[in-house]
Parts: sequence; structure tokens; C-alpha cells
Amino acid sequence: MSRRVPSLLALVALVSVSGALAAQAPAADEPIQPIEPARITSPAKVTLGRQLFFDPRLSRSGFISCNSCHNLSMGGTDNLPTSIGDHWQKGPINAPTVLNSSLNLAQFWDGRARDLQEQAGGPIANPGEMAFTHELALDVLRSIPQYVASFKGIYGRGDVTIADVTDAIAAFEATLVTPDSRFDRWLRRLPGARLSADERAGYELFKASGCVACHYGPAVGGASFEKMGLFQKYQTANPAVGRAGVTKDDADRMRFKVPTLRNVELTYPYFHDGAAPTLDSAVVVMGRLQLGREFTPAEVAQIVAFLKSLTGRQPTFPLPILPPSSPTTPRPQPFGN
Amino acid sequence: MSRRVPSLLALVALVSVSGALAAQAPAADEPIQPIEPARITSPAKVTLGRQLFFDPRLSRSGFISCNSCHNLSMGGTDNLPTSIGDHWQKGPINAPTVLNSSLNLAQFWDGRARDLQEQAGGPIANPGEMAFTHELALDVLRSIPQYVASFKGIYGRGDVTIADVTDAIAAFEATLVTPDSRFDRWLRRLPGARLSADERAGYELFKASGCVACHYGPAVGGASFEKMGLFQKYQTANPAVGRAGVTKDDADRMRFKVPTLRNVELTYPYFHDGAAPTLDSAVVVMGRLQLGREFTPAEVAQIVAFLKSLTGRQPTFPLPILPPSSPTTPRPQPFGN
Repeated sequence: MSRRVPSLLALVALVSVSGALAAQAPAADEPIQPIEPARITSPAKVTLGRQLFFDPRLSRSGFISCNSCHNLSMGGTDNLPTSIGDHWQKGPINAPTVLNSSLNLAQFWDGRARDLQEQAGGPIANPGEMAFTHELALDVLRSIPQYVASFKGIYGRGDVTIADVTDAIAAFEATLVTPDSRFDRWLRRLPGARLSADERAGYELFKASGCVACHYGPAVGGASFEKMGLFQKYQTANPAVGRAGVTKDDADRMRFKVPTLRNVELTYPYFHDGAAPTLDSAVVVMGRLQLGREFTPAEVAQIVAFLKSLTGRQPTFPLPILPPSSPTTPRPQPFGN
Repeated sequence: MSRRVPSLLALVALVSVSGALAAQAPAADEPIQPIEPARITSPAKVTLGRQLFFDPRLSRSGFISCNSCHNLSMGGTDNLPTSIGDHWQKGPINAPTVLNSSLNLAQFWDGRARDLQEQAGGPIANPGEMAFTHELALDVLRSIPQYVASFKGIYGRGDVTIADVTDAIAAFEATLVTPDSRFDRWLRRLPGARLSADERAGYELFKASGCVACHYGPAVGGASFEKMGLFQKYQTANPAVGRAGVTKDDADRMRFKVPTLRNVELTYPYFHDGAAPTLDSAVVVMGRLQLGREFTPAEVAQIVAFLKSLTGRQPTFPLPILPPSSPTTPRPQPFGN
């Protein structure tokens, strides 16, 4: 994604002066565009990727799958401040939702993965998360006849490779979009679609106060890295430095990928450290730190009403049935070896 | 269930002398009866129970749900020797499959719960499993408007009670039967249904060698408590004493509920301590310890072929979408309080 945004402050100024931001948003007269339904070009790949996404055998313990922390029953998150990893290790950062993540300019809070395929390999081999290695995960998959057959049918190779594993997972994840939110139906002027007065007031306030400077586009976020704590320093015990960890540029300290606000009603708690337990508290902190503004309780309620209209149709699919291990499948090591 | 079985050894003798066991099995001329499809009388209750089954907010950590250890992607088990509980505690015993568990004469390996409803309350409040209390779990559910509305609609009460929570979970679990296995289709003489020569030989051997003395009925087990280690003592480091823990009768030491063999291909590893990693190894040990017989490799292969024909149609349903917490919902405590 090569789209560049002007600096945050310039945009905030622009919005407050002219309300003209909408004209800058691509391909629409609103800064937020509707989520498009997924176009599935390889159903077999998506089915395989879904199995892998739910398969805890990609972890050392045999207990943790992608879905453990990106739980598709719960908005694609774990609803914990930071995640639980192998041996109950405390994760360093809030698990971002996998929903609509294909719309992000990069993956992880610091954008260190270019795309979903690159991201998918990360947790498997992260000692604090699934605590496996790519090679050991491949040994497991290669020992399961149904998986071997699926990979061969889709990729036409005589072997299972990590590139194909992550490609299949990414293909599944790309289907996890959430169209048809009440907001999108209203945006599209669909028959019968309407927002309440509070929801519309919240949207107007969201635009006029400058939230859209960062939270724009179909994902209402995910399109840029921005500094957490513009008007005030963000107080947190969390040591994450954000984008600077990737660029090694001190100017990027505390710059994080702007999280999507799609389905934000479901993806509590908020911020990279998961410190805001409720949507109300997150809106208050954002106003104060990013906009230098104290939203009144009535304004918070309106913005939250608008944000809840962004909850889309959740991906629904049959719980995948996983192919059984074979006698030669390496057994998981849940409690050391 | 009041059906009583004659003593194991008497039955083994009976089978080996006359092959007449089939005549003793209820309501059929075979000792194994087909699994009947679930009859759902309250779809709303089943839907609610399914949500609760998948909801990790019934655990203290917010991370462990019923499905964590009775994973319906993996034969209703976790495929681990013993389960992982709160704070990664090592569980004391192998998680039995939830599939067809409504057919068991009682629940848990030692039968300490009379039925599924009584069972369902156990893990929630077990400090080594979900590590919550019923009262705290109810506080969570009572704070979630969609749950409150579901309970009120189904049970007509102004409150959410633990009896209703476990009733709904049990109602869902009662739907988790696995009809239409290749074996059942053959048993029913359905058009086109056939078993291979090895599968039929395995079934004959299963009957003639006495396996059916304990593994009979629609669940191919689950109908009695039997002693683990009849011809030889079972060697294990696992301290579980079985039924004696409930009856306080020393004669019940090492008597466990006979596990179902339905879907046994999927429910590895085997035995109450999960010590047998493969079906082959489990068959060898069973022959030696329970029947005083060394099955040859060819016999093991035939019995295993038969056992794999018991894999039924796995329950398929859409992954449940859970109602979001509200601002007043008590937050999970994954890392102490």
C-alpha cells in the first residue's frame, strides 16, 4: 500500500478549518468507505487455511492456535489486555483483531510484517506465543496424510513448505472482512438503512474533531502509523516503542499502526497495552491525548454510539474439523519434554 | 441408566465359549448399536449452550472455555495426555471426549457426576481447570445483555442461575452425537454400506476376544465401570484411583468408566492417564491387561481397522459469535489480580 497521508496535525487543522477531509479520501465523498465482501478465488485454500488457523498442533504445546488469541467468536481478539502464550507467558502487547486485517498497510502494531502471509509465521515461532519452530510445525503437518493431500492438491508440490502454510492462513484471513455494518448500509444509502440521531451526531463529531485524521478508509484505521500521545505523553508501564523498533529511528518512538475501528465494540480492551477497558474510556483518552480535547460525557456517548454502528457481519463458517494425527506425528510438548 | 452387566470375566468366558454375547445386547442381535441422530427439542437452548461452551469468560483467566479441552475440531478432546488448566496447570487425568457423552452412564472417569448438567459445573469451579466460581461466572453472564435476554427467553426467570447455565450447556452437549459412521451404516445394512475384509475381521475379533464385554452398546463403552488391569496390574505414575474415590470402597480402586470407542481414531492419546499415544499401542495394552492375550501385529491391525470405522459424522455448526461484554462486566484475571 503506497498511499501516504499528510501529517496528522496538518490534517486536524484542515478538518477543523474547512471540514474538507472527505474530499481527500479516496474514491468517495466520505472519509470512511464501506467494507467490500470477500472475493474468494480459491475455496480449497481458504478451507485449508481455516483448518490451520484453528489447529493447535502448530504450537509446541498442542494447545494454542491462531484462534486462541485472534478468537473469531470474540471479534478476532482474545479480549485480554495482553495475550497468554506458551506456559502461560504474559504477552507484550494487545492482540490486534484479525478481522479486516487484510486492509492494514502492514501487520503487527509496529508494522514489522509486510502482509498477512509474513505475519502468520511470526507467532508460530515466537517463544512467548506458540513457541514452536517452522521446521517442527512442518514435521507435524507432513505427518498428517489429509494435510499432505490438501497441500499437494492446492500447491502442487511434493512437500509442505512454510511459505505455503502461511499463504493458506493468509488466504483464510483475507476472507475475514465484516461488511454490512449498519454504518456501511447507511453510507451506501441502502433501503431501510438508517442511523439514530446520536449515531449521526457522533459521526459528525468524529469527523469534525479530527478522529478521521487517523481513522479513515474502509478499515477506519490501519492505513498509517501515528504517534500515541500527541498533546500529552501516553502514560504506560508497557515498554513497547512502536515503529522505532523496526526503523531504529528515534522519531518513530511510540508511533504505532492506527488500529481499525471496525467492530471496535467487540475488540476491547483498547490501545497497544490494552489499558482502556471500555470504549467510553478509550474515547476520552484519545480526545485528550491525540486531539487535546476533553469530550463531554454527551459527546463521548455520541461517538460511542457511532462507533458501535461499525460492527459488521461477523464471518460465519462451520467450525473446522481437523485431520487426525498419524502414528508418526510428533506429539505436542505441553509440559516441557 | 440401570442396565447392569455381568462380570467381565464371566462375559469373556461366555463369548469365547459360545459367541452368544450379541443375544445379550439390548434391542439388537449385535453388541453394538448404531448412534441415533440428535433430536433437538429446544433450538434456542442449544444455541445458548453452544455459546456458553465456547465462552472463555466462564474461566477466571478469560482464556479457557469448555471447548479448550473438549475441542470439537479434534474429536471433542484436546489430544493431550492430560489437560492444561488455569496458569498452565497440568491436569490430573485425560480429558474424555464430549462426543456421545450423553450416552455415558455417568460423567468423568470416576463417574462422580450423574449427568452432563452436573458435569458442566465442575470444570468452571475447579481451581486446576477454569479456576472460577459459579457466583463469579454468573456475575459475568448477568452483565451481558444478550445473555440475560437469552436466558430470560428460554427459562423465563428474572435471573441467570447456575442450574440454567449447566442445563443449556448440557442441552448443547446432548446434540454432540456422531451418527452415520461407516460401521453404523454397515450395521444398518444401508445401500452401498460395506466394511473391508480387515474391518470385518477386526470386528469379529473384537467380539470373539472379549473386548465387547466392556465396549458395547451404542457408545461402544460408557455403560459400566471396569477395572483397569485385570490380568496384569496397570503400571502408571498417575495417582487416580478411579471409582473408589467416589464410593470409598477399596474394591473400586482402578475401576474407571469404560471410555467410548466412538471416534477413537480422533481421541488419542488413550487411557485415563493418556499414556498410550497411538491406537495400535492401546489395543496391545488392552489385550494384554484386560484379556490376558498378546494380539499379533496382524490382529492389532484388524482391530484398529475396525475401530477406525467407528468414526462418525462430526457435529458441524457455525462457530458461535459471542455477545460482547458490557462496561460493567467484570474483567478476566489472566495473570493474578
